Amino acid sequence: MSDHRIAPVAAHEPPYYAVVFTSVRTEGDNGYGETSDRMEELVKEVPGYLGMDHARTPGGLSITVGYFRDLAAIEEWRGNLDHRAAQKHGRAHWYESYTLHVAKVERSHTFERAQD
Amino acid sequence: MSDHRIAPVAAHEPPYYAVVFTSVRTEGDNGYGETSDRMEELVKEVPGYLGMDHARTPGGLSITVGYFRDLAAIEEWRGNLDHRAAQKHGRAHWYESYTLHVAKVERSHTFERAQD
Repeated sequence: MSDHRIAPVAAHEPPYYAVVFTSVRTEGDNGYGETSDRMEELVKEVPGYLGMDHARTPGGLSITVGYFRDLAAIEEWRGNLDHRAAQKHGRAHWYESYTLHVAKVERSHTFERAQD
Repeated sequence: MSDHRIAPVAAHEPPYYAVVFTSVRTEGDNGYGETSDRMEELVKEVPGYLGMDHARTPGGLSITVGYFRDLAAIEEWRGNLDHRAAQKHGRAHWYESYTLHVAKVERSHTFERAQD
């Protein structure tokens, strides 16, 4: 084990964009995990991609927030063919419901507890 | 049990605002749950409050997204004295780290699986 601590993606200099994806999954994995891992690797290749945070309450909501420098970066990721196939598969198999928000970050800041 | 299904907050008509709070908590509850429940009730009284989604990975990240009609609603909630006291307590006791984003939603949509 390293001393790497879990931490949310830190604030960037506004303006930038947050893509907020809130979802409830269907029962079972149905190949979600594998595809999700692959998408997480693929998105890193998009110029202007700034990072991603994810949380999932067992049996409840999932929230993924992706950060991008500008709308051009979001459009590039949105148009990626592998990503489009994954989205289509998601609507068919993985999601009971979801809401997607594209939002321009106007203000942000990060807090970190002082280390002992 | 009712037939009420868990679902994310649905898309509203843009523009509106998303306040995205990503955090890692300290060990233990330390009174967090009680205060969190109280804040969730209080924020409903803010004119322009549109809803809230929350997810927490056990042992990992928490993400809370609050939706507000405009910046005036966010400012009212930001200035609420009970909320300010809770924020101060949070920095002292509950959070290892957090990032707060205030972001203007430009585009959003909701998907719901057709019911059998």
